[in-house]
Amino acid sequence: MNEIIKGLYARKSMRVYTEQEISKEDREMILNAALQAPTAGCQILYTILDITDQSKKERLAELCDHQPFIAKAKMVLVFCADCRKWLSFYREAGLEPRRPGPGDLMLACEDAVIAAQNSVTAAESLGIGSCYIGDVMENAEDIKELLSIPSYVYPACMLVFGYPTDQQKERKKPERFALSDIVCENDYQDKSGQEIRAMFEGRTSGMGYDEWMEAFWKRKYESDFSNEMNRSMEEYLKEFLTVFSK
Amino acid sequence: MNEIIKGLYARKSMRVYTEQEISKEDREMILNAALQAPTAGCQILYTILDITDQSKKERLAELCDHQPFIAKAKMVLVFCADCRKWLSFYREAGLEPRRPGPGDLMLACEDAVIAAQNSVTAAESLGIGSCYIGDVMENAEDIKELLSIPSYVYPACMLVFGYPTDQQKERKKPERFALSDIVCENDYQDKSGQEIRAMFEGRTSGMGYDEWMEAFWKRKYESDFSNEMNRSMEEYLKEFLTVFSK
Repeated sequence: MNEIIKGLYARKSMRVYTEQEISKEDREMILNAALQAPTAGCQILYTILDITDQSKKERLAELCDHQPFIAKAKMVLVFCADCRKWLSFYREAGLEPRRPGPGDLMLACEDAVIAAQNSVTAAESLGIGSCYIGDVMENAEDIKELLSIPSYVYPACMLVFGYPTDQQKERKKPERFALSDIVCENDYQDKSGQEIRAMFEGRTSGMGYDEWMEAFWKRKYESDFSNEMNRSMEEYLKEFLTVFSK
Repeated sequence: MNEIIKGLYARKSMRVYTEQEISKEDREMILNAALQAPTAGCQILYTILDITDQSKKERLAELCDHQPFIAKAKMVLVFCADCRKWLSFYREAGLEPRRPGPGDLMLACEDAVIAAQNSVTAAESLGIGSCYIGDVMENAEDIKELLSIPSYVYPACMLVFGYPTDQQKERKKPERFALSDIVCENDYQDKSGQEIRAMFEGRTSGMGYDEWMEAFWKRKYESDFSNEMNRSMEEYLKEFLTVFSK
């Protein structure tokens, strides 16, 4: 196995950071790794917000499901799917572009997330830990105001970075499922109850399947943050869907 | 600059492949690199369809904006955002989960795309070229039928892989914009007309800005594939949005 693949296999989320700052050179290397990622038609359909203002970091920590470690990160990047900037480019040329639709939004989201993952891989190779914050898609109204996010721009994901503490480095990476649980050949196939229970064997912290699953369901799916994420995302989608303007 | 960052900077899309097959070992290494990617709450909110059936590859080549090279790829992976499987897990435990919403969908899309980009980086390190096919989000009805994609599953992106021909390896990587064109500090900022025109200097193939932009606009934005992508995506979104069930 080569060093690159070893790095991809070993990488895990890091949520506690030392006081060490990330150098300007490394910051730029991480941002450039994002920018060099694949992008649809070389359009770079995203804008990266580099959050350096400490008060904004603290507010993000609150708005993203109350996670104080966000405010302690040494680098905080919000990758916005940007369906707005090409509208400006077109208008500057005297054109009258249609408004963006949900396909445009999804393509821009993919661009943004592909770029984000390149920055994760680059940071990892420099010994800098990272953690995705999916919660940035919650609280649309407050997040938009905080970061001056205008129409047709959507904060697809947030990443926080810092040098991990020893405790974080030593933490065991959560075990993934087996490849055969995740990959289907040619067609999507539902799993049987038996197959599902087999997937979770040894993964339920010593609890029974039903008990573990109910606790997980309450924590992750029937949770306040999850309901808020759905509400907030519907807000973001409104400007992209004709059904809301009818 | 270390080897990993060099690899991320150098990677470009490859669309023409030699006859060399990808070994079983390398296929598994690429798939495992995807599976080891960051994932929200370790849920692996995606399913990878590994398309090995040649007739399906050929149909995908047609359905994804008529791109014959797709059928010639040695490995074709469809990364599906999967909001369905955890419903089955919950139901198996006797629970009655709510239906997935748009926040669930976006979180799953991110999981899928993050994993996809890991497979790109892993392949690149093995000398295997790749290309994203965003067009997989077009023709929802036909794609669902072809790959037996059920409710609450959405094909977020497709990747095709193969060993690149020498011509492809020598092709110049399309130049990215400057970092300062893509990154905003703390707040989203619109660009002025002057800034926009400066961004495109030397990037318009010897044409004037207005002329180049109009041609690009017709090719990428006012195009059949783009309109189809928007229509198709609205189809996928219907099952995730309460507005459609009202």
